[in-house]
Amino acid sequence: MPEGLTGPSRSPGDLSPEEFRRQAHLVVDWIADYQAGLRQRPVLSRARPGELVAALPASAPARGEALGEILSDLDRLVLPGITHWGHPGFFAYFTSSGSAAGALGEFLTAGLNVNAMLWRTSPAATELELVVCRWLAQLLGLPPDWDGHINDTASSSTLVALAAAREALGLDVRELGLAGRAELAGLRVYASDQAHSSVEKAAVTLGLGRRGYRSLPSDRDYRLDPAALRQALDQDLAAGLTPMAVVATVGTTASTSIDPLPEVAAICRERRLWLHVDAAHGGAMAVVPEYRGVLEGAGLADSLVFNPHKWLFTPLDCSVLYVARPDLLRRAFSLVPEYLSTPERERETGLGARNLMDFGVSLGRRMRALKLWLVLRSYGGEGLAERVRAHVGMARWLERELGRTPGWELLAPVPMATVCFRHHPQGMDDEAELERHNRQLMAAVNQEGGSFISHAVLGGRFALRASIGGIRTQPGDVEGLWRQLGTAAGERA
Amino acid sequence: MPEGLTGPSRSPGDLSPEEFRRQAHLVVDWIADYQAGLRQRPVLSRARPGELVAALPASAPARGEALGEILSDLDRLVLPGITHWGHPGFFAYFTSSGSAAGALGEFLTAGLNVNAMLWRTSPAATELELVVCRWLAQLLGLPPDWDGHINDTASSSTLVALAAAREALGLDVRELGLAGRAELAGLRVYASDQAHSSVEKAAVTLGLGRRGYRSLPSDRDYRLDPAALRQALDQDLAAGLTPMAVVATVGTTASTSIDPLPEVAAICRERRLWLHVDAAHGGAMAVVPEYRGVLEGAGLADSLVFNPHKWLFTPLDCSVLYVARPDLLRRAFSLVPEYLSTPERERETGLGARNLMDFGVSLGRRMRALKLWLVLRSYGGEGLAERVRAHVGMARWLERELGRTPGWELLAPVPMATVCFRHHPQGMDDEAELERHNRQLMAAVNQEGGSFISHAVLGGRFALRASIGGIRTQPGDVEGLWRQLGTAAGERA
Repeated sequence: MPEGLTGPSRSPGDLSPEEFRRQAHLVVDWIADYQAGLRQRPVLSRARPGELVAALPASAPARGEALGEILSDLDRLVLPGITHWGHPGFFAYFTSSGSAAGALGEFLTAGLNVNAMLWRTSPAATELELVVCRWLAQLLGLPPDWDGHINDTASSSTLVALAAAREALGLDVRELGLAGRAELAGLRVYASDQAHSSVEKAAVTLGLGRRGYRSLPSDRDYRLDPAALRQALDQDLAAGLTPMAVVATVGTTASTSIDPLPEVAAICRERRLWLHVDAAHGGAMAVVPEYRGVLEGAGLADSLVFNPHKWLFTPLDCSVLYVARPDLLRRAFSLVPEYLSTPERERETGLGARNLMDFGVSLGRRMRALKLWLVLRSYGGEGLAERVRAHVGMARWLERELGRTPGWELLAPVPMATVCFRHHPQGMDDEAELERHNRQLMAAVNQEGGSFISHAVLGGRFALRASIGGIRTQPGDVEGLWRQLGTAAGERA
Repeated sequence: MPEGLTGPSRSPGDLSPEEFRRQAHLVVDWIADYQAGLRQRPVLSRARPGELVAALPASAPARGEALGEILSDLDRLVLPGITHWGHPGFFAYFTSSGSAAGALGEFLTAGLNVNAMLWRTSPAATELELVVCRWLAQLLGLPPDWDGHINDTASSSTLVALAAAREALGLDVRELGLAGRAELAGLRVYASDQAHSSVEKAAVTLGLGRRGYRSLPSDRDYRLDPAALRQALDQDLAAGLTPMAVVATVGTTASTSIDPLPEVAAICRERRLWLHVDAAHGGAMAVVPEYRGVLEGAGLADSLVFNPHKWLFTPLDCSVLYVARPDLLRRAFSLVPEYLSTPERERETGLGARNLMDFGVSLGRRMRALKLWLVLRSYGGEGLAERVRAHVGMARWLERELGRTPGWELLAPVPMATVCFRHHPQGMDDEAELERHNRQLMAAVNQEGGSFISHAVLGGRFALRASIGGIRTQPGDVEGLWRQLGTAAGERA
């Protein structure tokens, strides 16, 4: 370390506000041009592995470079390696359907760049988060007194919820841990075989191990079967194991099936098991009044995760975790060190001063509420419902076309806006052959550039999967996909 | 559910690109005006608990509202509740020093809004992340072959690192968990009493419990004491416990003390313990060539976390986790479901196709690399070093002023740019009285509005704490703080 200097040394600081203004307007134009030109790009990137790594310098520059150069590299080097999630023909996975309003919210968040770890580190960041989570709960028809906060992803939200479930056992896992405790051997979490992999990952992270996760066979419509759940619980109890929580899904990853929440909740109440609902994608259906039934029974759960960054037009990342008893989250996570003790801690009641870092893993928390606020206000409850309703309509259209066209087969019900299907040419009945055939079809469609679909395996059968949820997607885009599928199938027939 | 519609229904879609362009230019001006006016605002918000909750409507609007209304509410209702982390007088905690370039990067990320969960879901997002992590490793002098990826916060990075350490025990925790396994009773993580609370939180989350976390007394300069570590390990081994990992800190939260990495690393090597280095804040010092020594010995660690969102001018959130053996992260976290299997999985070698969702808790991953790329390119390695060097200079100046002014006392060495001190009027020697006096001083300074400082407790003594790290902070701001402290102390003397 050098000796102390004789006086403070001047810092070059940041760009002047005027220079920032100039550069930011350039960036606005870049983004607007990008979005206007989305349809002209192939949805799925055609980049080869390592291409960008090879194209970039081996080191950061020693001296600063001009924004123009960086934007030019973004165009020339980065964009060819982008799979365009905002493209109207993005039908893979569940899209993260970022909207214009959401992007503006993110920009404001970065411009303010405050940390919502403690109430006092930006009271408005914490309070806005609590308020928008309540607004959203109303739109979804969830209990008005549930407590919501925002995490990055559903994987984190589910981890946090199951950590609270672990604490709710009343066996002081927070102090004593799990290791070596015979009374905790055989701690188990239950979900259907259609549940998201993040549930099993949470069980592993929390120290239950994969053997602490029991995957139950789903019914023929890919829903959790309450009878199978009862039976598994009985078996496990008889074997001396300790059921801890059940995860039910509203909108499973493969087919958007909806687990029977009322029946599952009744079982959980009866056996005093924590019920966590994963409505990360499917919760969005409930903003449409006539589809609100998808969350029937959710009010009996202990926790529920819904991701506005999936089908509610909010950019990544924004995952809302609701809990009926926030004290259990805090009991699982609060470890307040001295330097973060603040005078407001005493008044943590209602929606007032509350330190959200105590409710999960992350201490630093960016102001994610702002973008959700912009989305809810810019489109309004009815505007959001109109868009989700339109997506469901497009999926129903595709479902009908598939159902009435010879050679095509639906592989699951379509309760939301995701369609699982395959091409099944007459006489081709070997499953391996059907999979090869449909993989070729998928590759042909994805290479064409106008659409990007993904796949699923349902009941052992390989399914093509088109999920409709992009804010820019229009009926013509779904018709385009259907035409491409027809062409690809025709070429291969 | 209603019956299927007769045809696809048109969606209102999003704003047109031209309307987005118009609104985004308004947002640019709002942010530029906000930043230009930062000095005129009080750093610490004067809002009262519940103020914003009461001011906002109880529900989201049914119909969309105009951006102008939203920005006006942002000004009128939200800004008074913001504690301005970007204010040049923000000296509390460790600031998240967001820069202009970083904010532009965030805006681009939201405009693209791609998910870097799999290589193919945007090859450039994954590859840019791997490349900027390498660039950063070079700037910090870390081993060139270390593998880096970006998480949200250091809390998550440390959780992930310790999950890998748990897996590295070779006892198949991933499959079997911890519960009820006698051979895992007494699993322990070690750190000094100055370590960040996230280490203990990770131990709780991972199922080790608080008793699985051993906090070791630090030395008189608040550094981990290798002799105390050896002794604790010997004791615990003799008691049949199972040491798992040691966390050493470069830049502790209270005083930015630097644990002796070479000695700690030698102990970990000898005993085959995982060494995780928490350089979340302090790593930034290493971008200054003459301060690179702060990371001496880090290359012997198994993992290291550094947060560009703290002192490297990148907006929240951006935490880089480096590991020497990425296969252990993947072993701890990879659970690849069928729907995410992709043809590129076979080629996961080098910096080519790699699925980053397999390296941590979160499956969805926004393109955080873009803002770090913009920061590294816009300021360059030398530009970053100049800014950090200037902050260190300002802290040394404050340290010297405190040291030579009667009535003031330094409470810890100043190895970085954070100064811990107190006002100690002659004759006031009761610790409780000194704490009351300095709490009043802190409140007076923070209420004045030009600066925001926080506190720490060091060796049982209450310390005021000024941490210098904001990109806009200039010597005059530190002089201003020093004047305010003098005024406040004079008034109370």
